[in-house]
Amino acid sequence: MPVAEVSIVPIGEGPSISKYVKKAIDVFKKYNLKVEPGAMGTVLEGNLDEIIKAYKEAHETVLKDTVRVLSTLKIDDRRDKENTIEEKLKAIDCYK
Amino acid sequence: MPVAEVSIVPIGEGPSISKYVKKAIDVFKKYNLKVEPGAMGTVLEGNLDEIIKAYKEAHETVLKDTVRVLSTLKIDDRRDKENTIEEKLKAIDCYK
Amino acid sequence: MPVAEVSIVPIGEGPSISKYVKKAIDVFKKYNLKVEPGAMGTVLEGNLDEIIKAYKEAHETVLKDTVRVLSTLKIDDRRDKENTIEEKLKAIDCYK
Amino acid sequence: MPVAEVSIVPIGEGPSISKYVKKAIDVFKKYNLKVEPGAMGTVLEGNLDEIIKAYKEAHETVLKDTVRVLSTLKIDDRRDKENTIEEKLKAIDCYK
Repeated sequence: MPVAEVSIVPIGEGPSISKYVKKAIDVFKKYNLKVEPGAMGTVLEGNLDEIIKAYKEAHETVLKDTVRVLSTLKIDDRRDKENTIEEKLKAIDCYK
Repeated sequence: MPVAEVSIVPIGEGPSISKYVKKAIDVFKKYNLKVEPGAMGTVLEGNLDEIIKAYKEAHETVLKDTVRVLSTLKIDDRRDKENTIEEKLKAIDCYK
Repeated sequence: MPVAEVSIVPIGEGPSISKYVKKAIDVFKKYNLKVEPGAMGTVLEGNLDEIIKAYKEAHETVLKDTVRVLSTLKIDDRRDKENTIEEKLKAIDCYK
Repeated sequence: MPVAEVSIVPIGEGPSISKYVKKAIDVFKKYNLKVEPGAMGTVLEGNLDEIIKAYKEAHETVLKDTVRVLSTLKIDDRRDKENTIEEKLKAIDCYK
């Protein structure tokens, strides 16, 4: 199962962008995904189709309210063993 | 029009990954996109749907041949003026 | 104050990379930084010099044990208001 | 030898950021690096110290003129064979 991180940044709306980030997070939550917002991006866990659809809708949603968006989607996908946020954190002894 | 950069990295197949990168580039070329491979990623220009579909297929194609893939899609999308690879390079006086 | 995210990925050591990630985290902890490991990268808070030195040492440490490393440092730096992990999470109503 | 890609984005100065990108490129050129500006970032080739110093100075230079900067440094570093922009492009049949 893929684990992903998404960052969606409006450029040109001033330095404070939290209201746009909150809109993106609201989009992610409509999908069948585990959604974990963080200080530098939102971590998503779910199937590949859902992750990509959620990313695309969030990108388009923020772009509706602004003229320029820089967005990043990073996906870590493996098929040899279970890949989840929990397993990844346990592997580095950081699961709480 | 969005301009994007994609990087698809197999992890666990040894340090030489060019054959996987070439497969990803072959996937990009099937789409209606301008495709410019570079040393640190492949730049794509086209519409958002095509970029995202091409990225997804390339990610899945490389994952068929390996057990773990780390892929990144970065999209720069603006609606206030033409956004192309050529325009972006001209704006920084680097178009050749 | 900058907030950063670092990811250090050995390529060619097999698909399981947690022991390298743990070494990188141990390096970060030697510095005067807040260190928050996550599923897709480690978030760092501190001054710019410390962040960059910690990143460089972690990159070099992992490269000692492997032949190829792909590392990423992303820095969010602002001067108009306090910028901390806590403030960033509060701004999106996600501080716990 | 490492090959890197740097992106330095001011947030909050309006959607057109080319003047800041040009300043960053001017900084890179002061260092002992091969500098190749592209549509989605600038590729640098040189030793690790130079790359990191150039990145840091460019980040700080852009931050002098604006209140918030989001910058990314990605480094591909390998020790088993020559790693240059030219070799990387040749490996994927894209060297011109």
